[in-house]
Amino acid sequence: MDSAQSKPLILVSNDDGIDAKGVHALVDRLIQFGDVVVVCPDSPRSGQSMALTVNSPLRVTRVKDYRDAKMYKTNGTPVDCVKLAMHNVLDRIPTLVVAGINHGSNASINVVYSGTMGATFEGCAYGLPAIGFSLTDHSPNADFEPCYPFIDAIVKGVLERGLPKGVCLNVNIPNSAVPPTEMRLTKSCKGNWTDEYKEYVDPNGGKFYWLTGKFVNEEPDNPDTDEWCLTHGIVSVVPVMLDRTAPEARDFSWLNIHF
Amino acid sequence: MDSAQSKPLILVSNDDGIDAKGVHALVDRLIQFGDVVVVCPDSPRSGQSMALTVNSPLRVTRVKDYRDAKMYKTNGTPVDCVKLAMHNVLDRIPTLVVAGINHGSNASINVVYSGTMGATFEGCAYGLPAIGFSLTDHSPNADFEPCYPFIDAIVKGVLERGLPKGVCLNVNIPNSAVPPTEMRLTKSCKGNWTDEYKEYVDPNGGKFYWLTGKFVNEEPDNPDTDEWCLTHGIVSVVPVMLDRTAPEARDFSWLNIHF
Repeated sequence: MDSAQSKPLILVSNDDGIDAKGVHALVDRLIQFGDVVVVCPDSPRSGQSMALTVNSPLRVTRVKDYRDAKMYKTNGTPVDCVKLAMHNVLDRIPTLVVAGINHGSNASINVVYSGTMGATFEGCAYGLPAIGFSLTDHSPNADFEPCYPFIDAIVKGVLERGLPKGVCLNVNIPNSAVPPTEMRLTKSCKGNWTDEYKEYVDPNGGKFYWLTGKFVNEEPDNPDTDEWCLTHGIVSVVPVMLDRTAPEARDFSWLNIHF
Repeated sequence: MDSAQSKPLILVSNDDGIDAKGVHALVDRLIQFGDVVVVCPDSPRSGQSMALTVNSPLRVTRVKDYRDAKMYKTNGTPVDCVKLAMHNVLDRIPTLVVAGINHGSNASINVVYSGTMGATFEGCAYGLPAIGFSLTDHSPNADFEPCYPFIDAIVKGVLERGLPKGVCLNVNIPNSAVPPTEMRLTKSCKGNWTDEYKEYVDPNGGKFYWLTGKFVNEEPDNPDTDEWCLTHGIVSVVPVMLDRTAPEARDFSWLNIHF
């Protein structure tokens, strides 16, 4: 193996698409750590969770390099991007998968819908350390600079220490008036969305609906949650699992049935 | 509340679409338990995970009743179907959300990609008991009869006992030569997909890719897994969690950073 190959290879994806400011901000921080290859959707794919494309063809197109990073776009979901990168783009197994920086929060229940976290979980499914970064600012011109020290510290730490197999990180950075100076290990806040559709009538009298809604925090006073940290100007990091099996302690023994 | 309203209301969805045989087989079993309302995608949405539609309009169309069940189709994902049902279709909060019967396995890692399980997790996100059923047979004319005694027993049990908040059930039924007579409480098998894309060349010389791949079982001899049960002709039921926070015992304390 030559020395070039011993440099860490970092695979980057997102769900805001290849043109998003967030992914460029992420590359700005990652190039100090190794070779960076970016494979992103060709347009925004927010809310795509771990969706994958099973019934239509996928394409991968190389676009203009950004700094020292090779850039590719696909017509697929964030999970498709990671799978296509692993099978058809990268020339070696990456050291790390990083997704983001997402324009908007992926705290609380958003972690299950997020395409950014979908790409992160997919990296985890390949047995790789994986991190998703999000800033709580939806603006296309969001200022990602307050994220930098945290990205640097986390990426450095994960490259040195790795992560337990099957566990990846969901990092959310608050868009607060004063840049955050603290990061805490937390858990996903219990919460949900309400009032979820705006109703419209088309010119022919047909109804249609558009997703909207308001987040309801079910534990606003719990300082151990990601939401609490974000509202208090603190960066949140939640270790999240790919495996969804519930703890075995609960009593489900009635489900062992023999006819 | 009149007596009609005290009957359980069961919301049904799937990811194989409103025309799939599996959802009709499910309704055949559920109508004995209460009022059934079906809201499914208008076409197959396999592999949609918990994807939701954020950037385009959604429609809900009532179609012909099936037996005593009201049937609706939407142009959205399975998660969209459950959300639209909760907000724009149902006249009261459902007692139970059931998804399936999926044409094909949702065991092992498939649980994270499955649209059927996406709908199930979405029911769980509303705080409702929720169950996803899958038969390990992709055929459009699969024989769902071996599923019936298990659907009856599980639905009856969950209606009587409920499920812990935040936990739902992933039920997989083997398509075995001899109909199964046993069901076991198991866990998601560790495993993954490999060789995932078939490569093509279009008439203009451009490459495109189509998802394929082979499942690799990482613990084939572990009888506590869903895959082991399915290969041994036993129905598997895995209690799965909406929350993805990893257990706190692991040492992530280096992530508590103060600059």
